[in-house]
Amino acid sequence: MAATLRELAVRFGCELRGNPDIVVNRVGTLAGATADAVTFLANPVYRAQLATTRAAAVVLDVHNSAACPVASLVHPQPYLIYARIATYLNPAPVAVAGVHASAVVASSARVAATTQVDAHAVIGPGCVVGEGAVIGAGAVLGANVAIGPHTRVGPHVTLLDGVRVGARCILHPGVVIGADGFGFAPDQGTWQKIPQLGTVVIGDDVEIGANTTIDRGTIEDTVIEDGVKLDNLIQIAHNVRVGAHTIMAAMSGAAGSTKIGKRCMIGGGVVMVNSLDICDDVTFTFRSIVTKSVDVPGTYSGHLPAEETGRWRKNAARFRRLDSLAERLAAAERSLAKLMETKKADD
Amino acid sequence: MAATLRELAVRFGCELRGNPDIVVNRVGTLAGATADAVTFLANPVYRAQLATTRAAAVVLDVHNSAACPVASLVHPQPYLIYARIATYLNPAPVAVAGVHASAVVASSARVAATTQVDAHAVIGPGCVVGEGAVIGAGAVLGANVAIGPHTRVGPHVTLLDGVRVGARCILHPGVVIGADGFGFAPDQGTWQKIPQLGTVVIGDDVEIGANTTIDRGTIEDTVIEDGVKLDNLIQIAHNVRVGAHTIMAAMSGAAGSTKIGKRCMIGGGVVMVNSLDICDDVTFTFRSIVTKSVDVPGTYSGHLPAEETGRWRKNAARFRRLDSLAERLAAAERSLAKLMETKKADD
Amino acid sequence: MAATLRELAVRFGCELRGNPDIVVNRVGTLAGATADAVTFLANPVYRAQLATTRAAAVVLDVHNSAACPVASLVHPQPYLIYARIATYLNPAPVAVAGVHASAVVASSARVAATTQVDAHAVIGPGCVVGEGAVIGAGAVLGANVAIGPHTRVGPHVTLLDGVRVGARCILHPGVVIGADGFGFAPDQGTWQKIPQLGTVVIGDDVEIGANTTIDRGTIEDTVIEDGVKLDNLIQIAHNVRVGAHTIMAAMSGAAGSTKIGKRCMIGGGVVMVNSLDICDDVTFTFRSIVTKSVDVPGTYSGHLPAEETGRWRKNAARFRRLDSLAERLAAAERSLAKLMETKKADD
Repeated sequence: MAATLRELAVRFGCELRGNPDIVVNRVGTLAGATADAVTFLANPVYRAQLATTRAAAVVLDVHNSAACPVASLVHPQPYLIYARIATYLNPAPVAVAGVHASAVVASSARVAATTQVDAHAVIGPGCVVGEGAVIGAGAVLGANVAIGPHTRVGPHVTLLDGVRVGARCILHPGVVIGADGFGFAPDQGTWQKIPQLGTVVIGDDVEIGANTTIDRGTIEDTVIEDGVKLDNLIQIAHNVRVGAHTIMAAMSGAAGSTKIGKRCMIGGGVVMVNSLDICDDVTFTFRSIVTKSVDVPGTYSGHLPAEETGRWRKNAARFRRLDSLAERLAAAERSLAKLMETKKADD
Repeated sequence: MAATLRELAVRFGCELRGNPDIVVNRVGTLAGATADAVTFLANPVYRAQLATTRAAAVVLDVHNSAACPVASLVHPQPYLIYARIATYLNPAPVAVAGVHASAVVASSARVAATTQVDAHAVIGPGCVVGEGAVIGAGAVLGANVAIGPHTRVGPHVTLLDGVRVGARCILHPGVVIGADGFGFAPDQGTWQKIPQLGTVVIGDDVEIGANTTIDRGTIEDTVIEDGVKLDNLIQIAHNVRVGAHTIMAAMSGAAGSTKIGKRCMIGGGVVMVNSLDICDDVTFTFRSIVTKSVDVPGTYSGHLPAEETGRWRKNAARFRRLDSLAERLAAAERSLAKLMETKKADD
Repeated sequence: MAATLRELAVRFGCELRGNPDIVVNRVGTLAGATADAVTFLANPVYRAQLATTRAAAVVLDVHNSAACPVASLVHPQPYLIYARIATYLNPAPVAVAGVHASAVVASSARVAATTQVDAHAVIGPGCVVGEGAVIGAGAVLGANVAIGPHTRVGPHVTLLDGVRVGARCILHPGVVIGADGFGFAPDQGTWQKIPQLGTVVIGDDVEIGANTTIDRGTIEDTVIEDGVKLDNLIQIAHNVRVGAHTIMAAMSGAAGSTKIGKRCMIGGGVVMVNSLDICDDVTFTFRSIVTKSVDVPGTYSGHLPAEETGRWRKNAARFRRLDSLAERLAAAERSLAKLMETKKADD
């Protein structure tokens, strides 16, 4: 798709500095953009690349526009505007209506006429698939799965019985939703399985990354609210609730029954243990281990950065004796206090 | 399925307090159960919800039964009895004998007449699939795979050549068993692949969570013993042995050749490095990093919980100088000792 | 495949000590090898097993050969030579040319005549698949995917539009390459998706473990260079570059735009945050959290090993007050200095 800078400025509410008739048809990086591309400057780390960019135009804020050697589209939120322009120039593919001959669709399933069902997809009895949805190659929908309009289910996604997915979601390949939660009661050295009788309910505008797993609830449902974004290889256990517009980076996970608030930001590799209550607007930086509920919005951390191994080992060895070190300090403080008292008495 | 409280009490060995003719047909939570549901109280955290439950009956222990406002099924292990009642009221689906027309079954495979083979499943040459087993949609069995009776292989599971799975196992979607272990010999700055010639042997009553991976052995086999329960997104490397009835939570992993004992409990995100020997009855709490063999049963930990970022950073910064802090303490102790000696001499 | 020791010694450049006419046809472990097997001793941990081995021959270095009770194949790099002999005796399966009747291949795809395409595989429009490649059962190739000669794509692998894979690669089951990177711009409490317009380019001789995910680039491409080996359940985010012959163990990950040098060794569970620059020849030991770029080759660490829980908790509690402990030490040092000064004045 192509557009003039005039059209982009009007459509996305930018101030245009430069020739409005320039045509762009793609996006690029500051360093790599060609003369038919629009780029952006949002992260100050890349500011040095502005001077030499060969882009047709740069989306940036007013503070950087003076230094821009080419046309600029000025807006206080350049990253957001870039995202919109990139989407406009590269619209998401639209469903091509039709069911591939190799797909297996149960006779009781209701699949909208505008749905695209790819090769080898399997749609079970009682499923309902909305208008303009895409069911990717080899995706498997169990019984009574509901897929909202314009949702894209990637190849090899598995949605088990009763799972409900809202509108305009994107489920990347390999996602598994609705497998049994991990519940067992101890029974004389063995484990009795607890039936996992709930399902998973996913809101609208949710994106779920490749090979991420979301387990069905034990009795009630696991819930992912509207606008949640989950990265790859994430684990959401049974009965978890993820609040609207919360974002979780790759390899993070929430254990059973934990409730995460709205607009939280969960870094890569963060683990939340079971049965926590995390309030709205909480950020956990990468690799934190969250062991307590949080009722104050803010940022929480829990990682020790890697260091050169020799140096790390010395500190780690001290950590293993940290309690005795603290006791030694207390003993020294007591001796010192006694000495100082004596001295005062002597004086 | 429906049952009277009388029937449940008799079948599961509970003392019934209340009307034996009440009929239940489902399970519920203490807070959410309706009048046709049985619920349970096992975790004291939920005790406050007992007073207002609307369930037909509650499974609980004798200490809580006096406070129960509805009928009670009294048993010293309420969680276990709940699990059994829930299973009784919601029996696992039974295989529907037959091979879907779209499945591809090698002519040399022996598939029991009572097996259910779903759409697009692939069963390779020499496979043996037991009575009442289910091979889910799109599951792929390579050559010479053996599946025990009543085992359920989920959609998109991959079982590679020679893998043997016992009876009554449950393999959730996306599980990969028998991919090559990660073995390479250094060769002048590149890597020479080591052929992975063993396979994977899985016992009876094993459950394996979605997208978990278990690699084949290098020379001998990777072994998962009877009754093991693995959660989602777990990594079991080549030549590992997981002892009977051991349970591993999501995102944990065992590196090559590590042997884990029986009845161990491995928390979420725990990593065991290679070639360890972990004895029976060991618990690792979540996110522990296990770097040494363990020969004493007990509980082991290794995580630092997240804190408010400002506070965390101060402590983390001190950690980076912990060795020098310890040396400063030792110097202070020496000075102090000298001072005290002098003082004693002075006195 | 069978071979005499003479043949192996000549072919792999070993000094043979023992009867050159002995025939071997398999490999085994030192402890488990039978009389028709060759084994090896590379790790001194296993040296005690040498005395009782029943193998036909042992590959070992000159220092261990005197103690070998059976024939020996002497070489300074026994592990490498073992790898080559094992590969020679157990050659990787060769593609069996042909497209399974249930596979769906777009008419515009170019699949070499010697390619093996297994049941239910899907090959999209514009794909190019090289000579001797294998496309496993149920694998899905989107549009315009390129697969080099002799590359093996496992069952259930997903390669999305435009992904390019080099020659002689091995992609294990469940791998997802080319799903959207995790990019969103904040927009008044919700998230605007950033189109992910690059693709993924994989070099030659790359091996990728089961259920590993590699995201497509945002604007430019995510790149995996020649000879890289990735284990299972790894996350490679958008715009990452992994340098040639770097090896990453299971459950490790690199966040967006991080560049990893050549010949690095990334331990299991290591996380590298976004936008780092890691130079060549860096080793991170397992579970390190890498938060800064590294420009000095060497070994870096960042884990605290698990300990008995009671002991761990004491140290962890001290860690939470480490900053105040350090301040107390500084105060004690000041008092001590004052006392010592006074004492000096007194003397």
